[in-house]
Amino acid sequence: MKIVVVNVNTSESMTRSIDIAAKRYASPGTEIVALQPAFGADGVDCNFESYISAVGVMDRVMGYDLPYDGVVMAGFGEHGRDGLQELIDQPVVEICEASAHIAMLIGRKYSVVTTLQRSVSAIEDRLKISGLWDRCASVRANGMTTQEVDHDPERAMRTIVEQARKAVEEDFAEVICLGCAGMAGLEEQITSTLGVPVIDGVGAAVQLVETLVNLKLKTSKTLTYAKPDPKSITGWPFSTNLKQQNLQSIAA
Amino acid sequence: MKIVVVNVNTSESMTRSIDIAAKRYASPGTEIVALQPAFGADGVDCNFESYISAVGVMDRVMGYDLPYDGVVMAGFGEHGRDGLQELIDQPVVEICEASAHIAMLIGRKYSVVTTLQRSVSAIEDRLKISGLWDRCASVRANGMTTQEVDHDPERAMRTIVEQARKAVEEDFAEVICLGCAGMAGLEEQITSTLGVPVIDGVGAAVQLVETLVNLKLKTSKTLTYAKPDPKSITGWPFSTNLKQQNLQSIAA
Amino acid sequence: MKIVVVNVNTSESMTRSIDIAAKRYASPGTEIVALQPAFGADGVDCNFESYISAVGVMDRVMGYDLPYDGVVMAGFGEHGRDGLQELIDQPVVEICEASAHIAMLIGRKYSVVTTLQRSVSAIEDRLKISGLWDRCASVRANGMTTQEVDHDPERAMRTIVEQARKAVEEDFAEVICLGCAGMAGLEEQITSTLGVPVIDGVGAAVQLVETLVNLKLKTSKTLTYAKPDPKSITGWPFSTNLKQQNLQSIAA
Amino acid sequence: MKIVVVNVNTSESMTRSIDIAAKRYASPGTEIVALQPAFGADGVDCNFESYISAVGVMDRVMGYDLPYDGVVMAGFGEHGRDGLQELIDQPVVEICEASAHIAMLIGRKYSVVTTLQRSVSAIEDRLKISGLWDRCASVRANGMTTQEVDHDPERAMRTIVEQARKAVEEDFAEVICLGCAGMAGLEEQITSTLGVPVIDGVGAAVQLVETLVNLKLKTSKTLTYAKPDPKSITGWPFSTNLKQQNLQSIAA
Amino acid sequence: MKIVVVNVNTSESMTRSIDIAAKRYASPGTEIVALQPAFGADGVDCNFESYISAVGVMDRVMGYDLPYDGVVMAGFGEHGRDGLQELIDQPVVEICEASAHIAMLIGRKYSVVTTLQRSVSAIEDRLKISGLWDRCASVRANGMTTQEVDHDPERAMRTIVEQARKAVEEDFAEVICLGCAGMAGLEEQITSTLGVPVIDGVGAAVQLVETLVNLKLKTSKTLTYAKPDPKSITGWPFSTNLKQQNLQSIAA
Amino acid sequence: MKIVVVNVNTSESMTRSIDIAAKRYASPGTEIVALQPAFGADGVDCNFESYISAVGVMDRVMGYDLPYDGVVMAGFGEHGRDGLQELIDQPVVEICEASAHIAMLIGRKYSVVTTLQRSVSAIEDRLKISGLWDRCASVRANGMTTQEVDHDPERAMRTIVEQARKAVEEDFAEVICLGCAGMAGLEEQITSTLGVPVIDGVGAAVQLVETLVNLKLKTSKTLTYAKPDPKSITGWPFSTNLKQQNLQSIAA
Repeated sequence: MKIVVVNVNTSESMTRSIDIAAKRYASPGTEIVALQPAFGADGVDCNFESYISAVGVMDRVMGYDLPYDGVVMAGFGEHGRDGLQELIDQPVVEICEASAHIAMLIGRKYSVVTTLQRSVSAIEDRLKISGLWDRCASVRANGMTTQEVDHDPERAMRTIVEQARKAVEEDFAEVICLGCAGMAGLEEQITSTLGVPVIDGVGAAVQLVETLVNLKLKTSKTLTYAKPDPKSITGWPFSTNLKQQNLQSIAA
Repeated sequence: MKIVVVNVNTSESMTRSIDIAAKRYASPGTEIVALQPAFGADGVDCNFESYISAVGVMDRVMGYDLPYDGVVMAGFGEHGRDGLQELIDQPVVEICEASAHIAMLIGRKYSVVTTLQRSVSAIEDRLKISGLWDRCASVRANGMTTQEVDHDPERAMRTIVEQARKAVEEDFAEVICLGCAGMAGLEEQITSTLGVPVIDGVGAAVQLVETLVNLKLKTSKTLTYAKPDPKSITGWPFSTNLKQQNLQSIAA
Repeated sequence: MKIVVVNVNTSESMTRSIDIAAKRYASPGTEIVALQPAFGADGVDCNFESYISAVGVMDRVMGYDLPYDGVVMAGFGEHGRDGLQELIDQPVVEICEASAHIAMLIGRKYSVVTTLQRSVSAIEDRLKISGLWDRCASVRANGMTTQEVDHDPERAMRTIVEQARKAVEEDFAEVICLGCAGMAGLEEQITSTLGVPVIDGVGAAVQLVETLVNLKLKTSKTLTYAKPDPKSITGWPFSTNLKQQNLQSIAA
Repeated sequence: MKIVVVNVNTSESMTRSIDIAAKRYASPGTEIVALQPAFGADGVDCNFESYISAVGVMDRVMGYDLPYDGVVMAGFGEHGRDGLQELIDQPVVEICEASAHIAMLIGRKYSVVTTLQRSVSAIEDRLKISGLWDRCASVRANGMTTQEVDHDPERAMRTIVEQARKAVEEDFAEVICLGCAGMAGLEEQITSTLGVPVIDGVGAAVQLVETLVNLKLKTSKTLTYAKPDPKSITGWPFSTNLKQQNLQSIAA
Repeated sequence: MKIVVVNVNTSESMTRSIDIAAKRYASPGTEIVALQPAFGADGVDCNFESYISAVGVMDRVMGYDLPYDGVVMAGFGEHGRDGLQELIDQPVVEICEASAHIAMLIGRKYSVVTTLQRSVSAIEDRLKISGLWDRCASVRANGMTTQEVDHDPERAMRTIVEQARKAVEEDFAEVICLGCAGMAGLEEQITSTLGVPVIDGVGAAVQLVETLVNLKLKTSKTLTYAKPDPKSITGWPFSTNLKQQNLQSIAA
Repeated sequence: MKIVVVNVNTSESMTRSIDIAAKRYASPGTEIVALQPAFGADGVDCNFESYISAVGVMDRVMGYDLPYDGVVMAGFGEHGRDGLQELIDQPVVEICEASAHIAMLIGRKYSVVTTLQRSVSAIEDRLKISGLWDRCASVRANGMTTQEVDHDPERAMRTIVEQARKAVEEDFAEVICLGCAGMAGLEEQITSTLGVPVIDGVGAAVQLVETLVNLKLKTSKTLTYAKPDPKSITGWPFSTNLKQQNLQSIAA
């Protein structure tokens, strides 16, 4: 079995971390291919970046040669899973949803610990439209960007444990989901500190793709995720405006 | 006051229709500028196209010179409103949400009549994450693509009335929202046939932008819609894969 | 355009404040007429007073000569909006609902700061049956009656800011709604203190009535808000306004 | 024990029917006093009439001499229960809520059969803000006004059974609630026709008041239903009952 | 009238307490018979024990000779009510649901104070599937097992009051439900300390059974609670009661 | 890896079918052991039977010698999963929940086709308290008992397809879940007839147990599913398994 795991940002170190996490949890005989978009931001922390990432991920996967058996979208709660499901038949599993599914199987309530408070909204919305919100005790933020988590793992670890502890003690979470692909690898440390199961979304998603493939199931094509009707798509690639905007925001 | 109204697809005739609708409902003294993305599909009927449109709309608006007072996103329930809200300070109003807000002010339950059944999911999700779902009696589809609505207005009219009648008689809707920017202009005919108020989303959104500007309100920048942190965005524009995929789907 | 703004209590100073707020936010060319009920309490802080106010407001509006284009009910979350919608064709907008609609257009979550804790229930119920509850982060009370807010604006200001700050910091509200018509005028001060948009319901409602009139929309009369069937209303000697209405509806 | 049962309209024949229903279900030793408002409509089928009724009911009960042990508000889903709960300490039970409570004790889902389709909204809202909506399978209307039910019991019976049958067969209701005080007395006939338990709200409410009195429970006065603060109520000449109450509460 | 009150555990002292509570609240002329299962745990604090108790309660009631008029299941939120409702025609009222019903009649929000934090889940689930969750402000735990409550009433009292106070002050509960049959008898003390009505579930349930019997209502047998189809039940040697029931239903 | 698959009824032919289904979907290297309770009904179609089954399943699993890696509870929506999760550390997956998890990964809405209409309630409740209800389009019944499905597979097939077709065409389900362990094996036929993915719960659950084991996750023991406190369990003579467990936990 071959599973394509796509990072949603353009950070190569993040892609490597995701690759390691995916391989750690893949079953023997499962081949992991870690990809990253050809364009986009080197960290996805807001909707603007998330929409570019949605297109970047679809673009990268469509440019990757068959055959493969399924795709893991390794951006926690980012946009694009439904779009990719329309384009291909193979299962597409997003890591926020994967984490929630797994968490609900081993505990009554789960909490997510993510990066920035501003990202909490996106995760809440993802869980709500995916029908997985009911058993969520809380989504908590450690206040670091995706990139800061990438670069300062020690501080990341400390602040994640801090929020996870509050989730357990104040929100009565029984399982913790790591709300950022870049947090992969911290599971054991947190579990040993707090005594609750901790879920890395990449591992969860890889295993769920395997499960779907083993069950010989593919994405339903009868309605929402049917292949797009042929359209004329023009002017692509075309404009550098979004990059300009970004430079402006750096200057501002 | 100057309002930018952005079509979400690349159909020039659709952009003209939207321009007409916006001007019809704009107050005297309000200038309307109708734009369309520089790239993307000539009709948006699925999530794949919607994500490209999200980026296309952000790209087009960011490339448009200031000053303007607000933006209308003229794609019924499409992605991208929250992304654009992050990028600019001016109010951004999406036409599906605008329709629901207006409908709830003049009736207890409303229904949406949209194009394809597959689009119903996206509209439901948009209404749910926008907190406007509770008073929705139903989202019904007339079975035509956005492009077919554009090209065969007579059949569009007949099938929309048919679904609107069911919404009124079976689902007890008291207001009908036209679930596609391309349906603008059919309001009076449907109202005179069925006796219920009918809302065109473009008009509703233009008026709501005016309202926000008159109230001197801008998008809150404290959390979810704060300006994105500076990131390195690379490789943009870059790849033609998505176009290749599209051609494949035409061939298929 | 002429908009009738009805205070829900019999305090003349409150009516004057409401008149000022309405005129501040009305568009040029919009005439504002501020009314108050001929009977009722000089402050509405509970359901008992709210029901009297519902009848008082309907009585006062029915006794006011046509023509006018719409009505603002300036009692935050009070009863009676649906009753008045049945009696007249023109749009009727209540200020709690107006605030929530506007708040949802410029932020993801909003909080209401109201007067007494006992009033929180009524506001929650109003938002729930209006389908606007989902994006409400919290309804917080500053512990003062409507009359105390009217008479001690300094303490009102201080305690409202205090609750608004908690709403922003603890409940992650991105917009604040002033939950009492008597709080009108505090918007700028709070915004400059806390950095979040603040909405005065009277202004929001006036603008939304203008929007509905500009869109040529009236209350749907197909079901819930249809004109009442002729009934014999007896024993109601104080005012003949409501009875006259009834005879008119028989004639119509 | 003495229970005051208040009709919400001014129809004497309806008040007599309600009196009979209440006495049929009251326990031996319970005295029933049936009242009707001194003013208002002779049938309550819309919000306009319901608000007048809310005040009429409060006025009538406040004008009735103590002692009594509890009050039944015999208008199905009408306004006013919460207002009366503020004014007095004794339990106040409304018949729509009473029906739902009882139905949920003997079946998994219940349906309400009411009069006009326009009244369905009010009943839905009542059940929602009372927290009793979850187990409601449907609210169905037989298309007759309260007065028509009063005057043509045969047609009422036939159309009620018709809707009840649909509720059982299509909506899987296991219990039927009669959604109008004027339907009292039809329980046995419907049960023998359809085989499901049928609940008359007046009986249910009388018994629930008895239960509360037997449990020595009164309305909680800590927050929502606390006695109104003293206010100046002016211009209310018809009846001094409500003003007297106000003076009493000042004295207390 | 004769009501069977079944303890869900095998503690004789708990059964006696329940018997006393039931008799305290039963109307004159109502005979109370307190039973306890022939097998099971001497305290029910988790799902494992709750399922054994569900069977133990059904077994004990089926082994008890008719006639009786209704059954109270005196385990707060435990499993089995729906099973027993299938087996007999008489009303079966569970004390957690009974408490919530009564609480909602006298206050807008209620809280439950139960024993262990781990039991909170079960109570939440019971309230949710019973459709009584909406008005629940919180379920709080005092941290003692059922047995500890039984053996150390003083500490139980102190910790229950502590949690009830938080429910009132922080969660805005207006009524407190005692979330364990073993807490019966503490009502007056808590009410006099905190000023809110306090509900003992056993009393509430006894009174609600009386109400149902007075209304001549039995459990609906049309669908969910229909008598089980005849099945072969094998290997059940301890008690033949359940098997006898099965044979009876075959004969019927 | 060794997975214990427990039938919830005492039908040996059903246990064999479940064994076959489990083995069909188990990965190479996974050993399946199919068990059935030592007591209980030969088909579980109601709550009465489901509670006996809950105890029967716990009894049977506790009597089975370690080591094993996880348990599948092969009764669609039956009681007992949470009880067994308390007793053991290994993952316990119930087939109704497993089906919903898998369905939500490959389609937007799913429907369940079960046996009797009376069982619909239990499945709805299971999905609701498991937080998996949101994406459920409908639960439909084919009107046959579990035993009839077992004995007349042809009629079962025909009526299941009929309901599945309605689920797809009227309720817009995109995935069908077979709502009874006895329906295993019909997946391909239904998929080829209707074009939608069909999920057998036993297969789904076996694969999800494998996933959890591969992820090295066990049931969270911090709160809801903590090991029961030692209790005295008396009068339980049929099987000593549960009592032994209790003694073990005292020792631990």
